Amino acid sequence: MSQSDSIWSFVDVGNVTPKGFLYAGISAGLKVSKKKDLALILAPKGSIFSGTFTQSIVRASCVDICEERIKKSSGFVRAILINSGQANACTGNLGPQHFQIATAKLAELLGIREEEVLMCSTGVIGVPIQINDLIKNLPYLVNDLKVNNFQNAAEAILTTDLTLKTVVIETIIQGRKIKIAGFAKGSGMIYPNMATMLAFLTCDAGIEKEVWDKMISIAVKKSFNAISVDGETSTNDSFIAINAGEKIDKIFFPTIQKGIDIVCQNLAKNIARDGEGANCLLEVLIKGAKNTDDAIMVAKSICNSALVKAAIHGCDPNWGRIISAAGNSGVKFNLNDLDLYIGNYQILQKGILSKYDSQKVSDYINSKMKGTYLLDDIVQIVINLNSGESTGTAWGCDLSKKYVEINSEYTT
Amino acid sequence: MSQSDSIWSFVDVGNVTPKGFLYAGISAGLKVSKKKDLALILAPKGSIFSGTFTQSIVRASCVDICEERIKKSSGFVRAILINSGQANACTGNLGPQHFQIATAKLAELLGIREEEVLMCSTGVIGVPIQINDLIKNLPYLVNDLKVNNFQNAAEAILTTDLTLKTVVIETIIQGRKIKIAGFAKGSGMIYPNMATMLAFLTCDAGIEKEVWDKMISIAVKKSFNAISVDGETSTNDSFIAINAGEKIDKIFFPTIQKGIDIVCQNLAKNIARDGEGANCLLEVLIKGAKNTDDAIMVAKSICNSALVKAAIHGCDPNWGRIISAAGNSGVKFNLNDLDLYIGNYQILQKGILSKYDSQKVSDYINSKMKGTYLLDDIVQIVINLNSGESTGTAWGCDLSKKYVEINSEYTT
Repeated sequence: MSQSDSIWSFVDVGNVTPKGFLYAGISAGLKVSKKKDLALILAPKGSIFSGTFTQSIVRASCVDICEERIKKSSGFVRAILINSGQANACTGNLGPQHFQIATAKLAELLGIREEEVLMCSTGVIGVPIQINDLIKNLPYLVNDLKVNNFQNAAEAILTTDLTLKTVVIETIIQGRKIKIAGFAKGSGMIYPNMATMLAFLTCDAGIEKEVWDKMISIAVKKSFNAISVDGETSTNDSFIAINAGEKIDKIFFPTIQKGIDIVCQNLAKNIARDGEGANCLLEVLIKGAKNTDDAIMVAKSICNSALVKAAIHGCDPNWGRIISAAGNSGVKFNLNDLDLYIGNYQILQKGILSKYDSQKVSDYINSKMKGTYLLDDIVQIVINLNSGESTGTAWGCDLSKKYVEINSEYTT
Repeated sequence: MSQSDSIWSFVDVGNVTPKGFLYAGISAGLKVSKKKDLALILAPKGSIFSGTFTQSIVRASCVDICEERIKKSSGFVRAILINSGQANACTGNLGPQHFQIATAKLAELLGIREEEVLMCSTGVIGVPIQINDLIKNLPYLVNDLKVNNFQNAAEAILTTDLTLKTVVIETIIQGRKIKIAGFAKGSGMIYPNMATMLAFLTCDAGIEKEVWDKMISIAVKKSFNAISVDGETSTNDSFIAINAGEKIDKIFFPTIQKGIDIVCQNLAKNIARDGEGANCLLEVLIKGAKNTDDAIMVAKSICNSALVKAAIHGCDPNWGRIISAAGNSGVKFNLNDLDLYIGNYQILQKGILSKYDSQKVSDYINSKMKGTYLLDDIVQIVINLNSGESTGTAWGCDLSKKYVEINSEYTT
């Protein structure tokens, strides 16, 4: 894997995205703000779709139908319609009805079968989609399909997000340019138990369905399933990854896996950084665990602790809360083996308090609260459990009064 | 059980507490505020102790030693020393050393064996106890032991609590007056996975160890293990329940069980109501579950949702968040069977939105935010899953900016 570490380079989103894919993003008036709210991805014929969906019992009907259509077609679908504004969740029979009306109409306009169209929704739960506005705007959406409308599509899926979340990377394999492009939306209800709110990935290296599904599953575990904003799993969480184009030789699978990992982790970190009311990205790296699952569990437990998050917000190196959260992760370890660092400052060595300057650690945390949305501005916590060889990372953000403000004033 | 519902009556805490027990509470200067910080319970000879402790891997050494001493003595210990100010957790070897020094000295003063003394601590994690101040004050503490110093003891265990948490109930069984008295402290790190921060119960009806342990376990499940302030389990969570006196006939065990349930639930609700920054008590009642465990799991998942808690704070009847949290509880149910009420307002009937006046539901929530600490002021959410016969209740509180403020400014 180390060989493939540097093979991928980030490219400007304005550049042409993976070969054969078309994107569109327009305003259909579904959002009160009249911002873009309707997106479309059209994949070339023969594309292979992999879907990862929320583990919640309360799922939007669009999630159920997407899963079913991908399964029935063995991944051979063609298009994804995405609306923001209304989540189309918990709306009774209107949920599947609106899904079917919209995808049938879009299929007709695209000249493909209804079953080849997926639909993802995000926004307020319990409010039906303004289906007439949506249908009326489908011809404009189809007209807008372009190779370089990737950014418009990415804009159209946002809700309370403050930043656009897009990544495009490329490499050359056997003289052939390969691109992977992803976009996502996040903000609240972020504790994906499978995939995050909404994220989409397109790749122009052809890979058969079984291998592709496995690659996506590996990437999801280390990215979308390793972030938390507030411990809440949404009714609509979906991540759909599509590949298309000439098949690639299996000796390059590790390179492609690395590329998918990069795109997914980048999107996931962007989602955590843009958590509601967040001022910094929190990265928790666990070393010396018995296995990767244990490492991620401990890391997630810390990222998910309201007390740790509030302490980070207050630039308070409150290590007691950090190890207390680790202790509640369900993973067994011995406190007397544990090393803890905040940034470069060692706080505990084999469970014993190190000599450190509390003010300097506080200054370190404070220095990351710049109000920019750069992923470089990371508050890092590192724990070595010293009980094995595995590592794992999770990402989160601080807990601010703004989070409470946003979420006590959302619907009424 | 219904017969025994009304048999217990609440009595004034100032009155004499369960027969044979002595209490003390003084200031030993462990708290910066110089408020009371050292408490003592002395149980009569032959008393039976049952201990329930935190399930966290990171436990204070006092928790380990308490558990060991209760186990080794088969429950026949005599005294509990409780300090607030420092949690005596994560202090390396100083933890057990301070425990032993303090309990040995106290045993000497009381004329009992060191192994008959337990010690519980609460306060800041990672800071050693001011052991010299503590030891110096033990003679004053012992001098303070009185039948009616119950309230002083209850005061001395508080940290950031805003209210005293005490309950005393009594009944007459076969012409004999029986009393059960409990006190507790809570505030933050409240998601007990076994028992809450610190709670103590004394009862003057003698019951053998095995039955007593079982009764306590039943009560804990429906009280301390059914509350959440912030989803955080503490390093020091302990609940110790003691009975003493003449053995009671087993036909009255249901009555005693009911009494223990009342005391534990009352203390637990008081802890939830006094959650950091809380303005109301949130009660979630789940009906129609397959079993009690499922019902409590769904109820806890809702009480523990940051988004539900923030919505309640904003007096927002955001039912989408409520059922979304239910959907993430791990319990299987069908949304199309679900009835949901907020107060007396029906929001969903068999999964379909009812006609209700959103403003009136908001006014109902708002009417409970009186700033009093009365347990009558409850925001109630009722869900019928319609998939079984079992019920379960959990308690929590709203999430306010004040919670973030308190917890971002606690140690530094």
